[in-house]
Amino acid sequence: MAKGNINVSVENIFPLIKKFLYSDHEIFLRELISNGTDATSKLKHLIAIGEAKTELGDAKIEISIDKDAKTITIKDQGLGMTADEVEKYINQIAFSGAEEFLDKYKDNEAGIIGHFGLGFYSAFMVAEKVEIITKSFKDAPAAHWTCDGSPEFTLVESDKADRGTEIVLHVAEDSLEFLEESKIGGLLNKYNRFNQVPIKFGTEEINDPEFTPATTKDADGKETTEPHRKITVDNIINNTEPAWTKAPADLSDEDYENFYRELYPMQFEESLFHIHLNVDYPFNLTGILFFPKLSPSMDMQKDKIQLYQNQVFVTDNVEGIVPDFLQMLKGVIDSPDIPLNVSRSGLQADGAVKKISGYITKKVGDKLASLFKKDRADFETKWNDIKVIIEYGMLSEDKFFDKAKKFALYPTVADSYFTFDELIEKTKETQTDKEGNHVILYTSNKEAQHSYIQDATAKGYEVLLLDSPIISHLMQKLEGGDAKIKFSRVDADHVDNLIKKDENVISKLSDDEIATLKPIIEGAVNSKTYTVQLEPMDSASSPFMITVPEFMRRMKEMQASGGGGMMGMGNFPDMYNLVVNTNSPLVSEILNNKDEAAQKGLISQAFDLAKLSQNLLHGEELTNFIKRSYALIK
Amino acid sequence: MAKGNINVSVENIFPLIKKFLYSDHEIFLRELISNGTDATSKLKHLIAIGEAKTELGDAKIEISIDKDAKTITIKDQGLGMTADEVEKYINQIAFSGAEEFLDKYKDNEAGIIGHFGLGFYSAFMVAEKVEIITKSFKDAPAAHWTCDGSPEFTLVESDKADRGTEIVLHVAEDSLEFLEESKIGGLLNKYNRFNQVPIKFGTEEINDPEFTPATTKDADGKETTEPHRKITVDNIINNTEPAWTKAPADLSDEDYENFYRELYPMQFEESLFHIHLNVDYPFNLTGILFFPKLSPSMDMQKDKIQLYQNQVFVTDNVEGIVPDFLQMLKGVIDSPDIPLNVSRSGLQADGAVKKISGYITKKVGDKLASLFKKDRADFETKWNDIKVIIEYGMLSEDKFFDKAKKFALYPTVADSYFTFDELIEKTKETQTDKEGNHVILYTSNKEAQHSYIQDATAKGYEVLLLDSPIISHLMQKLEGGDAKIKFSRVDADHVDNLIKKDENVISKLSDDEIATLKPIIEGAVNSKTYTVQLEPMDSASSPFMITVPEFMRRMKEMQASGGGGMMGMGNFPDMYNLVVNTNSPLVSEILNNKDEAAQKGLISQAFDLAKLSQNLLHGEELTNFIKRSYALIK
Repeated sequence: MAKGNINVSVENIFPLIKKFLYSDHEIFLRELISNGTDATSKLKHLIAIGEAKTELGDAKIEISIDKDAKTITIKDQGLGMTADEVEKYINQIAFSGAEEFLDKYKDNEAGIIGHFGLGFYSAFMVAEKVEIITKSFKDAPAAHWTCDGSPEFTLVESDKADRGTEIVLHVAEDSLEFLEESKIGGLLNKYNRFNQVPIKFGTEEINDPEFTPATTKDADGKETTEPHRKITVDNIINNTEPAWTKAPADLSDEDYENFYRELYPMQFEESLFHIHLNVDYPFNLTGILFFPKLSPSMDMQKDKIQLYQNQVFVTDNVEGIVPDFLQMLKGVIDSPDIPLNVSRSGLQADGAVKKISGYITKKVGDKLASLFKKDRADFETKWNDIKVIIEYGMLSEDKFFDKAKKFALYPTVADSYFTFDELIEKTKETQTDKEGNHVILYTSNKEAQHSYIQDATAKGYEVLLLDSPIISHLMQKLEGGDAKIKFSRVDADHVDNLIKKDENVISKLSDDEIATLKPIIEGAVNSKTYTVQLEPMDSASSPFMITVPEFMRRMKEMQASGGGGMMGMGNFPDMYNLVVNTNSPLVSEILNNKDEAAQKGLISQAFDLAKLSQNLLHGEELTNFIKRSYALIK
Repeated sequence: MAKGNINVSVENIFPLIKKFLYSDHEIFLRELISNGTDATSKLKHLIAIGEAKTELGDAKIEISIDKDAKTITIKDQGLGMTADEVEKYINQIAFSGAEEFLDKYKDNEAGIIGHFGLGFYSAFMVAEKVEIITKSFKDAPAAHWTCDGSPEFTLVESDKADRGTEIVLHVAEDSLEFLEESKIGGLLNKYNRFNQVPIKFGTEEINDPEFTPATTKDADGKETTEPHRKITVDNIINNTEPAWTKAPADLSDEDYENFYRELYPMQFEESLFHIHLNVDYPFNLTGILFFPKLSPSMDMQKDKIQLYQNQVFVTDNVEGIVPDFLQMLKGVIDSPDIPLNVSRSGLQADGAVKKISGYITKKVGDKLASLFKKDRADFETKWNDIKVIIEYGMLSEDKFFDKAKKFALYPTVADSYFTFDELIEKTKETQTDKEGNHVILYTSNKEAQHSYIQDATAKGYEVLLLDSPIISHLMQKLEGGDAKIKFSRVDADHVDNLIKKDENVISKLSDDEIATLKPIIEGAVNSKTYTVQLEPMDSASSPFMITVPEFMRRMKEMQASGGGGMMGMGNFPDMYNLVVNTNSPLVSEILNNKDEAAQKGLISQAFDLAKLSQNLLHGEELTNFIKRSYALIK
């Protein structure tokens, strides 16, 4: 029997890093800036506890580009390193196994952005040669390390006098784009605009604040002001203390709104309200979420929630971290506890992430409940902008459903806003039919269903305006919660049948007359799409009316909006009822008209008018109707 | 000066492979089956050239699951390995550097699915221990290799008597799902249903083909047939010779259609036509693309073009490989020359991929041109299903535009289909206005614009039916190619103004009368949305008509459908013209009616009828119109 070791030798790990571990080359800058930030924060800490005898000064990180030399330099004023430390941190990527390599890479404490360590090696994604010139805060000579991406390096003394570390990247031929100021500026803005340490990128000219231009008067009394004195100052690209790092008590509504605009400069609408997140245990998370005002001009896709770790941008894909129904929100989440480099299914299984997602849902629910309680009128004005988010949440998260039942609103066509309980209370008396079903009437479109709404409100019924794309699913869920509750669209039947009471409407036409009339109308209508029903209604009601039965229509809608309804229903043809009011004088006239052509003409015109009120008259039928109608008014 | 080596040591590369290189654990089965396929093909080759003295037999690959032992076994009847070869191929992942490691991984010759090599190590993604029991076709003892995922292994002799290799995976606790038959069956169906070597997964019972059941007659002459004899046969899950590997000359239309259904079993519609791809140089590619019949029930997202390498499924994401406009096609592409593990921008820059994409575009263009030439009538019946693909291609690829100009069709409302040249020829005489502009009339909706179409066809004009979502962009492009060509929707103006000829229509109303009438109508209309224009038209034409100026409307449409139009135009309110026909008797009647209320009533009714023909009458206005109209017919 032979025993042995599988011979694995990776002499040069750089290409591996370059090709696989970082699929996104541009993050090298974020990694190096994070190292500089870390070196600065650590020094600050050492000074504070008395272990470093030096002044921090206004330590910043400076990024500069030299196009001729093809270099990018990242210079910090942090800890610095001695030659021994360079040897220790840079030269030894000595991990006993790949596991440790990986752990180091995604180490929670260090973060993805971590200390000198693997992050540093991302430099080789864009550089063919990297130099480190560094002087420690300790009393030791400065060191100058150079490596061309092979495992060989040189390490010599340097005459660098000031504390800190300079990384010089000699940009490789395939990465020359990173020598463009616009490119680096773009990266800084993407990843580091809230970095904890100030970042200087170039300079800018401003008016000298210590100089007041003198104004002189000439002989005519004309005033002349001398030009303002300009000074050149560092161009600091970041805000080191973004709103989410502050205590809510220290922030006004205006501060939040300013932050919203800082985050999304192309967003012109104000936010509706914000939720400040702040939790230490069992995970660490800060952030601010905004409910946006919906607007057709808004790029919903672009202004996403941004995920940060220690004020460094990581991604704007928060799938799995933020519950689906809240992905339409805007804002920032900053947490070191979210594992990166994990697949979506991995994220969903991760305990910490589940807790984070649950926490966010809870905070959003609490905030909405408190806003509703504090200023209901204001909440109502915002309902139209937030309803889709809330309805989607009610459908997808049961805990949220229970919470939202108290503040989810059901607006009527008359602009009243009821909670579900209020709605039930308000309509119980009037809208319960003779079998005890409590019928909630609604319209999906105030304009298109206008005549039906008019009939229902004339009866004293409340008609809700429910027009969200997922509302049929929510109705289904609400009906499922109470067997007596039924939702019915106003045009599902004529108003007497929508909510059947114990009232008997007497038909002016006898059964014989009805039996005579029905085939006449069916013959004139001549369409399988319409089922003709003769019913006694109020004599002032429309002679003809087209209704759309609730069940089929809703099943079709649910299938169209996804995830529900009855399989295959989406392909069923539309079916309508043509309800003929046997008490209408026009209907009697049709019955009694013995001129067959005239009788047919009357039916056609009435049928066309009924179709019009359901937007079903089109094409040649409409053209002919219009011609006939012009003739009638002449 | 110090010089040295960066100390990189990765003792155990397995976890690295597990976590990073293969993000998708399930591919282990594909990798191992590919190794078995390769071992079988190589043996076949050696036998053919006389280097192996053995019989191939009906060599297959057998997959079996043992739930109790928690193992999955992949057994082939290929080359096999001697102990020395195991040592060489399995134990030495000895690459001089990561570069070679990577190159080996994505080596073109070996394919991602390659020989014994890195593919084998994917076994450790799901197994905590892996055994290889293998006997070479050469005269050498069988070998038994065992490794628990650490770099240590054991290698002993085995008593395996039959040629080939068995891989036994001891499935790890976190991967027990792979012990389910449905899971493995699903993977086989996904990756290997067209594998080159037969794959056996379980057995099935079938009627014994060598047995004919005897039929006996009883005394009453009643026949009884004995039951069929059943035999158990291997369940072969794959088709080793899918259509795309055959020569087009050997395939009938039915064969192609059967393959289409084999590929997409849930697809019930037939394809419209197919394109067989077959090229050796400068890259290797075979495949069959199908133009699908568009159907609302079809899951466009699901039935995508599938990318294979040597009959092994790789992905159904062909972005960058197949031009965007052809992504709606269905079918298979099989090529070893497409680099995997490359970002989208990398793919777009890759020379081979560019050539492949160009080749596919060219083949599709040629096929369409030949179909058009061969059977134009048939091509016309298919136009509605393929137009969006072709129009999108014309917009996005200039070469395709030039080719498609010859077969792209412009259907009329009367169901004639013109090519662009034919259209120009046919309409040149009648549809050139007095300034020399050649005006092409079209409708986006035959039903909604019916009355306008009627007016235009009455004049002898051709009206195209152009209803693709991107058609405004194509019109813009066609207009850009010839300054004299103008597209105009039929409702852009009244018919005399759409194509202005040198005909003077005399107005029955004098200028004074017009000056009197205009403010009366404007007052009654009372809306900034409508601009009132009084114009002399045919006295039989509509008294009132609403038109939608072409330019604004098209800009808005282009913005809505993306990538064009004029910035910000999407938010402009809709603007209409109300054209009043000064030669209509009704208009004279309005002018001469001295009863102000009656005059206003006439205007309202005529205005409502004009709105109706543009589907602009809704809500309360419509309800009131209907009530008024019922009153008129009573």
